[in-house]
Amino acid sequence: MPSPAEQRLATPTRSQFETAQPEAAQFEDASARVMKRAVELAACTDLEGGLQRLFCSPAMQETHRRLQGWMHAAGMATRIDAAGNLIGRRAAAAGGGRSVLIGSHLDTVVNAGRFDGTLGVLLGLGLAELCQQAGASLPVSLDVIGFSEEEGIRYQSPYIGSRALAGDLRPGDPLLERLDDGGVRLADALTHFGCDTAELNTAAYAASDVAAFIEPHIEQGPVLEEAGLPLGVVTGVAGQTRACFRFTGEMGHAGTVPMALRKDPMPAAARFIVEVEQAAKRRPGLLATVGRLELTPNVANVIPAEVAVRLDLRHIDDSERETGFVKVHRAAMQIAKQAGIGCRLEWCEQQAATVCDAGCQAILGDAIAEEGLPTHAMASGAGHDAVVMANRFPSGILFLRCAGGVSHHPDESVSQADVATALRVLWRALLKIADREPQPAGGLATRA
Amino acid sequence: MPSPAEQRLATPTRSQFETAQPEAAQFEDASARVMKRAVELAACTDLEGGLQRLFCSPAMQETHRRLQGWMHAAGMATRIDAAGNLIGRRAAAAGGGRSVLIGSHLDTVVNAGRFDGTLGVLLGLGLAELCQQAGASLPVSLDVIGFSEEEGIRYQSPYIGSRALAGDLRPGDPLLERLDDGGVRLADALTHFGCDTAELNTAAYAASDVAAFIEPHIEQGPVLEEAGLPLGVVTGVAGQTRACFRFTGEMGHAGTVPMALRKDPMPAAARFIVEVEQAAKRRPGLLATVGRLELTPNVANVIPAEVAVRLDLRHIDDSERETGFVKVHRAAMQIAKQAGIGCRLEWCEQQAATVCDAGCQAILGDAIAEEGLPTHAMASGAGHDAVVMANRFPSGILFLRCAGGVSHHPDESVSQADVATALRVLWRALLKIADREPQPAGGLATRA
Repeated sequence: MPSPAEQRLATPTRSQFETAQPEAAQFEDASARVMKRAVELAACTDLEGGLQRLFCSPAMQETHRRLQGWMHAAGMATRIDAAGNLIGRRAAAAGGGRSVLIGSHLDTVVNAGRFDGTLGVLLGLGLAELCQQAGASLPVSLDVIGFSEEEGIRYQSPYIGSRALAGDLRPGDPLLERLDDGGVRLADALTHFGCDTAELNTAAYAASDVAAFIEPHIEQGPVLEEAGLPLGVVTGVAGQTRACFRFTGEMGHAGTVPMALRKDPMPAAARFIVEVEQAAKRRPGLLATVGRLELTPNVANVIPAEVAVRLDLRHIDDSERETGFVKVHRAAMQIAKQAGIGCRLEWCEQQAATVCDAGCQAILGDAIAEEGLPTHAMASGAGHDAVVMANRFPSGILFLRCAGGVSHHPDESVSQADVATALRVLWRALLKIADREPQPAGGLATRA
Repeated sequence: MPSPAEQRLATPTRSQFETAQPEAAQFEDASARVMKRAVELAACTDLEGGLQRLFCSPAMQETHRRLQGWMHAAGMATRIDAAGNLIGRRAAAAGGGRSVLIGSHLDTVVNAGRFDGTLGVLLGLGLAELCQQAGASLPVSLDVIGFSEEEGIRYQSPYIGSRALAGDLRPGDPLLERLDDGGVRLADALTHFGCDTAELNTAAYAASDVAAFIEPHIEQGPVLEEAGLPLGVVTGVAGQTRACFRFTGEMGHAGTVPMALRKDPMPAAARFIVEVEQAAKRRPGLLATVGRLELTPNVANVIPAEVAVRLDLRHIDDSERETGFVKVHRAAMQIAKQAGIGCRLEWCEQQAATVCDAGCQAILGDAIAEEGLPTHAMASGAGHDAVVMANRFPSGILFLRCAGGVSHHPDESVSQADVATALRVLWRALLKIADREPQPAGGLATRA
């Protein structure tokens, strides 16, 4: 028996152009394929016993091979661009027309889960298959994109794929000279992967050719699960400050230096970490994390010479983040002064917040509402390809609930039911975007 | 012109037995030799570009070769016992008689300084040479000992040399089966070094054969330097509690988990570290150090799943240390409970305090006073071979001032002037010990 949501879907969406709705069972089948393919692609790995798929690696090549097979079967034309992005296109009905881009990244972190990134590509592919099954004749092309690189693992620089598509990675970019841990130049990695870096210009979409970019992605946090909702519409991606505070004292033997004569940076660093948490709890929306510490020498019976504290600070409002950083920075200096030790801010990188396109937000929100679900608007604290794409194209992010908020871990998990719901929402969103496009001359019959 | 201290030394110590005093210049020369030999032995290393001398290593073999050369030149008989200890003996004047043992360890930490341990052996050798120069006829043997292993680096177990001399390491001990990082059994390392582990019993001194063990050692702390004194008499070695507190929360993405939904063990561990320092500052004599932290996974943008805090707690009074530990343990549990995370005491090792022999303390104190210096009694927070030797023999430790309290580091430094003062004090102490011994039959002429 179809669920209430499936029954609602049986009512065709009103549209300017001719298309049948996929059957409820077709959404179910599509979601089952997504789940099965996520398992299959997780076997394309550079790491024995776990998933790790790096930019331009053999595992990436095999991933492309499998995805291309499925794309061809769905009647799509495929290509790999000069930055190693995989793009499968279901062309607009009358040729020409702008493109709706759907996808996410195919690279992973080390010992990754099988949904972060990959799920967005599989949902895009699933949507293309539903188009095929429904015989949809759309005034837009549907380009399913598997971005080549987002996590920044191999070259310590994220967003390589999306930068190329957004026209921000061109021949001669210094990044192309960067070496990986094995001493391989980024440009050589691309060449070896079959890409022509001299053609990087051609990877960029013209802004006028793109109707919208929609990135479906697991939330990577526990908010949707806490709210009991399968999907969320992302309002924007938080800005981020990354900084390293280096507390420096005097190394000493744990047994021989009286407490009063110590210049121990550890308790001062600890006070700072407590202060960071309190600052974040005082300032709504501020996320503050100390996930990495470096003690020198990090030996149990030696008073450390130095404790380096890596701070990660995020907020959807840049001024709130900047104010928060000023406060914790001041706290660090005061704490060090009181302890009679040194503290310096060794480096600090900042990235401004990204606001998602209002039109994309509205379309995703309406599509969710039409599925009878509350529209949950939320900020993303994590970066995504959409951050880069938003610089050039109307971009939106659809979050899917993931179990326990776990990501970047083999336990990463989404439910097939949520995947099916996401496919129904993406179908509605695709039609809504298409509806806003100018219809081709001699266009499709309207049903209104 | 001799210094005031040297002028005082020109007055012979009143003694029951015949011996001339070394000249002031001979003490100076002896101290110069100690400094020069410390440099020379620092070249006997297993580590390119730094000093590291492990138990039974090629560097230790070369160290023994050089020390034996100097010992033979000083008229001493030398041997290497079944535990790899080097022992040079200047025999008692009339044969027989008990032994005064002087020395310390020859093994080092990684990237060590040249005085920790080695200095005690070189001072013992210097004392033997002074005996030779003065033609001293003593009723005791002087055994200069270079302990084979004290730092516990190669086999993660300290005091191998002193345990054998104190009769606490015998054939069949499970420690002999332990493997080093290269998979070499301890017993095989000894065999390869030329030692016969079946003869380990013979390494032990009979308690009745030892008049005293005196260990000269750098302080490894800043107390003597702060007090402006070259030497200190150790009252005892602090007891020690080593423990690991494992704070366990939930790993998460730094950008996606709201502060209110986090189970972040880092701020809780930080609160604990602050509490540890405060507890030590409230309780006089308690030393508390967190020198090592292990974050899992220790990545800047990941909320850690776990923070392991290694605690080192020391006090000369065992009950004070135990009470202190109960308090910080309770604090850890309360902090974790308040944070809604887990905390468990993963392991905990305790070592009771060692009290130095009152007679040895008195003799060293008197010898220092006779040099016109204040007698500075102090606890040792660091362990030494004397901790093990004290279980069986009257044992004392003489601390030498070291620059900045620095030890276990290439910057380790003592001044030649302090070394000369230590030699004068050790000379006086040796005569005082000898004075307390029964004089041999047909013994030496007394001067009284």
